[in-house]
Amino acid sequence: MTLYAAPLDDMRFAFYDLLGGDAVLARLPGGEALSRELIDAVLNEAARFNEQVLAPLNQKGDAEGCHFDRDTASVRTPQGFREAYAQYVDGGWAGLTAPETYGGQGLPHSIGALVKEMIDSANLAWGTYPLLSQGATDALLAHGEDWQREAFLKPIVEGRWTGTMCLTEPQAGSDLGLLKTRAEPGENGTYRITGTKIFITAGEHDFTENIVHLVLARLPNAPAGSRGISMFIVPKFKVDRDGAMGERNAAACGAIEHKMGLKGSATCVMNFDGAEGYLIGQPHKGLMAMFTMMNAARLAVGIQGLSLIERAYQNSLAYCRERLQMRALSGAVAPDKAADPIIVHPDVRRMLLTQRAFAEGGRALALYAALQSDIEERSEDADERARAGEVLGFLIPICKALLTEAAVECTYHALQTYGGHGYIAEHGIEQFARDARITTLYEGTTGIQALDLLGRKVMQLQGAGLKHVLGDIAAFCQQHAGDEALGTFVGPLAVHTKTWSDLTQELGKRAQDDPDEIGAAAVDYLFYSGYIVLAWLWARTVATLDASSLDAETRSEKRDTARFYFQRILPRTHTHLAAMQSGLAGLPVVR
Amino acid sequence: MTLYAAPLDDMRFAFYDLLGGDAVLARLPGGEALSRELIDAVLNEAARFNEQVLAPLNQKGDAEGCHFDRDTASVRTPQGFREAYAQYVDGGWAGLTAPETYGGQGLPHSIGALVKEMIDSANLAWGTYPLLSQGATDALLAHGEDWQREAFLKPIVEGRWTGTMCLTEPQAGSDLGLLKTRAEPGENGTYRITGTKIFITAGEHDFTENIVHLVLARLPNAPAGSRGISMFIVPKFKVDRDGAMGERNAAACGAIEHKMGLKGSATCVMNFDGAEGYLIGQPHKGLMAMFTMMNAARLAVGIQGLSLIERAYQNSLAYCRERLQMRALSGAVAPDKAADPIIVHPDVRRMLLTQRAFAEGGRALALYAALQSDIEERSEDADERARAGEVLGFLIPICKALLTEAAVECTYHALQTYGGHGYIAEHGIEQFARDARITTLYEGTTGIQALDLLGRKVMQLQGAGLKHVLGDIAAFCQQHAGDEALGTFVGPLAVHTKTWSDLTQELGKRAQDDPDEIGAAAVDYLFYSGYIVLAWLWARTVATLDASSLDAETRSEKRDTARFYFQRILPRTHTHLAAMQSGLAGLPVVR
Repeated sequence: MTLYAAPLDDMRFAFYDLLGGDAVLARLPGGEALSRELIDAVLNEAARFNEQVLAPLNQKGDAEGCHFDRDTASVRTPQGFREAYAQYVDGGWAGLTAPETYGGQGLPHSIGALVKEMIDSANLAWGTYPLLSQGATDALLAHGEDWQREAFLKPIVEGRWTGTMCLTEPQAGSDLGLLKTRAEPGENGTYRITGTKIFITAGEHDFTENIVHLVLARLPNAPAGSRGISMFIVPKFKVDRDGAMGERNAAACGAIEHKMGLKGSATCVMNFDGAEGYLIGQPHKGLMAMFTMMNAARLAVGIQGLSLIERAYQNSLAYCRERLQMRALSGAVAPDKAADPIIVHPDVRRMLLTQRAFAEGGRALALYAALQSDIEERSEDADERARAGEVLGFLIPICKALLTEAAVECTYHALQTYGGHGYIAEHGIEQFARDARITTLYEGTTGIQALDLLGRKVMQLQGAGLKHVLGDIAAFCQQHAGDEALGTFVGPLAVHTKTWSDLTQELGKRAQDDPDEIGAAAVDYLFYSGYIVLAWLWARTVATLDASSLDAETRSEKRDTARFYFQRILPRTHTHLAAMQSGLAGLPVVR
Repeated sequence: MTLYAAPLDDMRFAFYDLLGGDAVLARLPGGEALSRELIDAVLNEAARFNEQVLAPLNQKGDAEGCHFDRDTASVRTPQGFREAYAQYVDGGWAGLTAPETYGGQGLPHSIGALVKEMIDSANLAWGTYPLLSQGATDALLAHGEDWQREAFLKPIVEGRWTGTMCLTEPQAGSDLGLLKTRAEPGENGTYRITGTKIFITAGEHDFTENIVHLVLARLPNAPAGSRGISMFIVPKFKVDRDGAMGERNAAACGAIEHKMGLKGSATCVMNFDGAEGYLIGQPHKGLMAMFTMMNAARLAVGIQGLSLIERAYQNSLAYCRERLQMRALSGAVAPDKAADPIIVHPDVRRMLLTQRAFAEGGRALALYAALQSDIEERSEDADERARAGEVLGFLIPICKALLTEAAVECTYHALQTYGGHGYIAEHGIEQFARDARITTLYEGTTGIQALDLLGRKVMQLQGAGLKHVLGDIAAFCQQHAGDEALGTFVGPLAVHTKTWSDLTQELGKRAQDDPDEIGAAAVDYLFYSGYIVLAWLWARTVATLDASSLDAETRSEKRDTARFYFQRILPRTHTHLAAMQSGLAGLPVVR
């Protein structure tokens, strides 16, 4: 079985010491109740639940997968998943970050992000079921009428029902403007929804008595394309305006997908055959409503990536300490043993340090973004809210794409450290590599994130978020300009930041000549930006260490990892820069 | 079902036009018979067999996998595999490159490499069964006594039996010096072999009536470590010195592994319980005997990588031409359709061109190495043989590691172009990603290849192979120094080659201070070297185009791909160089 121990020390370091998360929350409305004692208690309890309940189900869930019964259109989740969900609900985790008005605990997103990381490390497939409830919660909060919130939100927050997001159709993936599902007005303000949705995570399962689908569809005479899409609430069992559950709705799972990984998560084909639903939000504004939920969903997938990096790293590290093969080139390190542990080999350390740099750096990045989201939601200062929103909008595609691509890379390294044993299912490490592979695809592929970053956030929105981040990095560099211990970090960081800024200008000019230049540079720009943001967070880490709660050995490891990051990861920017400089001309038309 | 059409045009371009393979073979003994007509006929027939017989079994073989029956210790291969093998034997493919003396066709390794690429593209899992016969053939040819060749080699060459290589044990993977399997002298010059081997590809199957295991084991009182290992022939059914098959031997499959991919290939635990065998080669020289076969085996795995790149690319390209999502940023390209094919997006082209650059460049690299192997084996000039052997020894770890790592990368890109559909088993593309994942592990991990390259081939052997390659590249650059059409290629190539040479000197000096510096640089050095070698082959490609048989459009595509390679792939050397320059100090001890 694979190991998992929640990295509580590093979580606390990142949250308290590095980002001052408790101080940030304390000055936001409602934050006075959020003491370190409370936060620590939540984290400790989450660690216990995830280590003991969810983690042991992960490998078994992958081996067993979900089973679809065609006759009853029902899905049986892997053994133990349903019971674990009941424990999750009993523990009050379902409504952790939901408003108290609807039965939630009202905790901030940053605390939710830490708990989410643990859930996904413990059992990513299981974690997709409550994740989709989160999306439905956000949608109902932002766009639902009062009665819709009363009828649908409360049972979701209580964990009695779960939610889904029904967007994709066979011909409409990244391009939702192509979707065809129809909504016809019915009786009593209801609509009849007809169409087929695919890739619906948690579209059917055996956790709860009802499932609330949020479905994108077209009203009669809706404009073509993305401006003609509306959002509907379509429950599995009909629900009246008083919240009473009625008969089975014509919304049923038609099949589940056989996938590369994430096998414990039911990925459903959903058939809506005149299913009864309610319009949520304004007609034809469904896509815009979706976008308001997208930050949370994309950050959540970035955290999925982080969570796999963390768990794969823990296992890889343990294996490299134990596995004896060959002697260190510079002479035996464990002469009393048949061979040295493979951790003595510098190349094995390279693979481990890469994982550690992304696990700890990625955690800082995800938490930093989650804190911006708390500020945006809770601050009483409109300027501060706006600034946090701009920073968040800029960081979201980076969090999503960089952390998921890093998950693919790091689970590759973890598997590689096992040698041939890594390829064998029994060791459990190959599951992490398979599970990781979905994260760069769903909630917008890496290419889509990159277009969002460079095309929308940087070019269309005049780079407001970028400017804040550049300003923050410049301020950091200036603050520590004379700090000798930080010299090897601040210098390269300042140089990179200057190049980043110049490059952005240059790309803007090129895009005026040909908008396709954006597409030619976008993915490289995203990585380039992401590596610099991570470098900033690693430099901040070093600057924070002396005043932190970490023990001397851990501080020294952090310094080592920061140095490794600057020497061995950050230079990837050279390659991305060269690629961007070659421009669109280097990507000729392919037959 | 996934597509596969053998890339015959590009194979012929690489073999005839780029590398002058027919001319090279023609001047080697026996080469006069190898006309283009003959070679083309072999390739055409191989294409037919692989496209029609093996390719359609690939996806089904993955879904079905191998089944182990504990009661009979037997393995049932996926439906159709056994029949396909019978057709393969009937077609005369089993002995394609084996000596005519033993019933083979005596074709050179370079032709074998082209056929091997097709087999592995068509069905990598199936291809592992005959691959292991190749290893046994090489071992028997190089080290077998006359009667051993008569008794064991002929049936293998005829395809009536297959071979295996039994090296790995649970505690002995990369470090074979740790192996424990024992061999006790028995009657009539036989030995009794006792021990457990793991990860034995094709250790048991239903293709043939007998299986010939080549087993590494220790004789009584053998020296400890790698100097005390001998090699034994241990057949599944006993074989006497006259070649007659007798009773069942005590060599049996105990289990098969459940793996991430390559599911149609039986990966066996083999239990030897006093099994009867014969010593092959000298006592205690088994590991050296293994090493003489390693070039062929490692090149074969490099070709496995290439083969997956090719097939995944073909499918990715077809999908990108057909899949309609969104409009080009610069305006609709297919206004009559609901959306543009995704191939219009520059970032999609980046993913396709990356695959194409490695498929075509990798083919040139693998063929170049295979031709060196033909020269080493067949030339009548001892100096030429020695030179070819040195170049081959240098190129083998690059072929193996670079092409398999590129396979992991390129199957990643292929899957990514499918979006979420890529994650679904039905499309068949995720199988390529799972199958590719083994290739960086077996026959020596990437880390082991890198130590072989930098530690052994460059440092210990004074870099003889490197010097030849550097000399050939310098000669190419000089020859084309004034060629304007090649200016954008020859300039950067010359600069890179100079840096490569200086870097090698620098690493040599550092290694004198601390041998661990080799381990700290090795993997980066391998990639660095590999990217320059591929750049050379791409520059040679451009230099060759005008006189080639390719049509104008394909020539233009080749030029585009070469430019793409130089602009977007070759700059990866910057990152590897920076990593190497940071040295061992950047890879601190990890707890």
